[in-house]
Amino acid sequence: MTKEIKVLETCFGGKKIILIAGPCAVESKQEFDADVKDLKKVDCFRGGAYKGRTSPHSFLGLEEEGLQILKEASIKYKKPVVSEITSETQINNFIEMVDIIQVGARNMQNFELLKALGKTNKPILLKRGFANTVDELLNAAEYISKEGNDNIILCERGIRTFENTTRFTLDIGAVAVLKTKSNYPIIVDPSHAAGDSKYVEPLALAAIAAGADGIMIEVHSNPAKALSDKEQALTIKEYNNLIEKIEKIANSIGRTI
Amino acid sequence: MTKEIKVLETCFGGKKIILIAGPCAVESKQEFDADVKDLKKVDCFRGGAYKGRTSPHSFLGLEEEGLQILKEASIKYKKPVVSEITSETQINNFIEMVDIIQVGARNMQNFELLKALGKTNKPILLKRGFANTVDELLNAAEYISKEGNDNIILCERGIRTFENTTRFTLDIGAVAVLKTKSNYPIIVDPSHAAGDSKYVEPLALAAIAAGADGIMIEVHSNPAKALSDKEQALTIKEYNNLIEKIEKIANSIGRTI
Amino acid sequence: MTKEIKVLETCFGGKKIILIAGPCAVESKQEFDADVKDLKKVDCFRGGAYKGRTSPHSFLGLEEEGLQILKEASIKYKKPVVSEITSETQINNFIEMVDIIQVGARNMQNFELLKALGKTNKPILLKRGFANTVDELLNAAEYISKEGNDNIILCERGIRTFENTTRFTLDIGAVAVLKTKSNYPIIVDPSHAAGDSKYVEPLALAAIAAGADGIMIEVHSNPAKALSDKEQALTIKEYNNLIEKIEKIANSIGRTI
Amino acid sequence: MTKEIKVLETCFGGKKIILIAGPCAVESKQEFDADVKDLKKVDCFRGGAYKGRTSPHSFLGLEEEGLQILKEASIKYKKPVVSEITSETQINNFIEMVDIIQVGARNMQNFELLKALGKTNKPILLKRGFANTVDELLNAAEYISKEGNDNIILCERGIRTFENTTRFTLDIGAVAVLKTKSNYPIIVDPSHAAGDSKYVEPLALAAIAAGADGIMIEVHSNPAKALSDKEQALTIKEYNNLIEKIEKIANSIGRTI
Repeated sequence: MTKEIKVLETCFGGKKIILIAGPCAVESKQEFDADVKDLKKVDCFRGGAYKGRTSPHSFLGLEEEGLQILKEASIKYKKPVVSEITSETQINNFIEMVDIIQVGARNMQNFELLKALGKTNKPILLKRGFANTVDELLNAAEYISKEGNDNIILCERGIRTFENTTRFTLDIGAVAVLKTKSNYPIIVDPSHAAGDSKYVEPLALAAIAAGADGIMIEVHSNPAKALSDKEQALTIKEYNNLIEKIEKIANSIGRTI
Repeated sequence: MTKEIKVLETCFGGKKIILIAGPCAVESKQEFDADVKDLKKVDCFRGGAYKGRTSPHSFLGLEEEGLQILKEASIKYKKPVVSEITSETQINNFIEMVDIIQVGARNMQNFELLKALGKTNKPILLKRGFANTVDELLNAAEYISKEGNDNIILCERGIRTFENTTRFTLDIGAVAVLKTKSNYPIIVDPSHAAGDSKYVEPLALAAIAAGADGIMIEVHSNPAKALSDKEQALTIKEYNNLIEKIEKIANSIGRTI
Repeated sequence: MTKEIKVLETCFGGKKIILIAGPCAVESKQEFDADVKDLKKVDCFRGGAYKGRTSPHSFLGLEEEGLQILKEASIKYKKPVVSEITSETQINNFIEMVDIIQVGARNMQNFELLKALGKTNKPILLKRGFANTVDELLNAAEYISKEGNDNIILCERGIRTFENTTRFTLDIGAVAVLKTKSNYPIIVDPSHAAGDSKYVEPLALAAIAAGADGIMIEVHSNPAKALSDKEQALTIKEYNNLIEKIEKIANSIGRTI
Repeated sequence: MTKEIKVLETCFGGKKIILIAGPCAVESKQEFDADVKDLKKVDCFRGGAYKGRTSPHSFLGLEEEGLQILKEASIKYKKPVVSEITSETQINNFIEMVDIIQVGARNMQNFELLKALGKTNKPILLKRGFANTVDELLNAAEYISKEGNDNIILCERGIRTFENTTRFTLDIGAVAVLKTKSNYPIIVDPSHAAGDSKYVEPLALAAIAAGADGIMIEVHSNPAKALSDKEQALTIKEYNNLIEKIEKIANSIGRTI
């Protein structure tokens, strides 16, 4: 039985499949608004304020200003927002500004961060590290829950393999394995796994069919102009088309969106 | 546009999703019959006669007797049979006895075998090697087609990664990538990827949602007694339950079984 | 030309190969002393005070008390000590207590930590993440150097692959690649790669032959009683035997220990 | 205790480290002669006659003519030759023309070929598949030995991982593991692992230090003109320089060349 985690009006882990969408990075207030205002049936917004990028010369995010934009969007649209934390020193800010705190793949075994988040009561979206096993993901979750916070949502986002026609290899089996080994809600991020917008749809549909409780999709009002991950962002129209297909698959397995 | 490949009354690559099922190995005439006679909506039977097993001390198959049992089943049930070839020296026998010749993962780059099969006009089910890239799979197909035979069906069956809660990691993205890079029908083998019967269903459903043209499932009348791969075989009842779910997903994306 | 990094009397990156040894974790003052006092030709001591372990139920280290024991050992033996930092919040303590700050594999892309360390002038031993590419390791180093600190020592310690007779697969080629792509000293940790004391020697010798500037070895006065990583720790006697062999290899390629 | 395998005057598995060298493919009699005539201290020649290449449009070898050239070189230089077999149907030819039959990485689990080779008494050089475990390699060897032929030499040549600055990741630990799990001689092929001539030397030296009984190196009189694998071939001069360094390492561990 999957644990239900409620965030504002959104409930993770129920019959309803949760749709999270938004840009890779919060680029400006205007851009964020353009990215999210026309998304159909979206339940929750995503947007990065502190961007952990491979190279320090890449765009590293708006930081506190980005959190402020997310906070305003949450109030304006009455939907929860999720954003990635990259240091324990940011925790107070995140508690105040976002509804769900994301631990990114690169920090899945940043144990001091996990312990610190365990002492809050914020919902945590814990992404699997791209070279971590399912068991290590569950151990990471235990670092959080052991401190008292079991508002945890797990996220499969692709693992690193020798195959490189996709950016990562979505481990669709992990959804099934996690369902037997834990009772946390499981969501899937097809955007980072694909690394290419044209593969996001089949991965998203597969995730729903495999039993995921939600998906997290990168969108942008104009992907070619996105400051990060432009290859994998869907346009608003592509997203809305995808949601129609997701709804049909969801209904075919007795779920809703 | 996917190429259609017709084998007896079965057409791979059309709107209809093709269901292949049968035991890992042909164990006896009676057992094969028990394995397949009650499978609902099955289009094609599978069964190994020459078993390439990691250890030479494992059950290695009935060889020619196995092919004979498959031939009789094909006639009795009026359905095509597929079986794995493991050497060029078996080609004449396979041409006579089976409807589709499978090249297994371990022989995907057995180029002499591929060239020899390219000189026949038999449909070939070419499985991806568990450490081969999508591009290498397409190059292997070209070894066959270059000789004149392009009756090729590609099969994703999981790749080898560091994760070991499943036997292999099903590369669900490869289905999507292959659809953009080739026009051969693509099927998925969730049984070998999962290596555990309880994960076969979610992988099978994901495969259909991702756009696969068919699936190949291992079943056994009594998995605990199977001579090979007993952990991953579905019972007949489990298979029939799965097919109902597959039908619903297929219908939701405009396909049939 | 390899950059030379001097720490007390020890110089990384010169003709002399640097030998780092010590227990996985600092367990007590007495135990640490027993672990290191008889190590031949050792240049630097290692010992974990903050242990990032997969499970929160494992021994997690003595924390500040561990750092204090290292500090005293550094003074007593007049040799530098290296220990792993796991959070930016520990930086002031580490600056005071240790001579070289290690960033562990799991924190190689903890970019906030890297940036904070870049603002110090302490030597940093940066371990490659077990699923990070050589290029990502160099990018991580750039996060440190961009802030002004280029006292960086890189460490190859094995990557995660499908092979599991060793704990990780030592990427011996990475030593060669790093030598062509950067001028930082490169050391190798054969202990974590092997995960088994009987494979530490061949990996250590291979590292020296491939051009590494140093090695870091886990030792324990009584491995069977070690609180962490007991399988991979060498006894003091095994270590001393290994050093004799390392010296011969080093001399054969024109280096010393 | 390593089993000794004698081929003509060459003994694998003894104190002497065996040096195998030659071009990737036999291109012509003149070219082969130019490739091998000035190699110092070489014990055995290699050269491909049947080339299993990823794409059927690549140069696929001189086939029987290639074997003839190898046969003549063996007679002329009084040294054994090794070449890769790619089909059971070639066995009689190989028995007549070469001294050691190589099973390539892609055929390591071509079990029919292994069984057929087990029925000969020719020395077999069995290369590890690039995605096969050490245990699978030993099982493959058992397919040969079970039929009566235990003149087997194992070869580590790199495995497929996410890292791509080298063509494959040389699993140097496998040399050590194989030494504890079997008594067959172990050689290493640094050329295919590196995929780049500038990394061949460090990998070769590491292999000797780790305990390999021999190495197999690709050379060419003019690598830029090689018909296959030109990036990884050493010039004759580079090879001869390498051999001097190998000799020093070998001597430092009590072995000779």
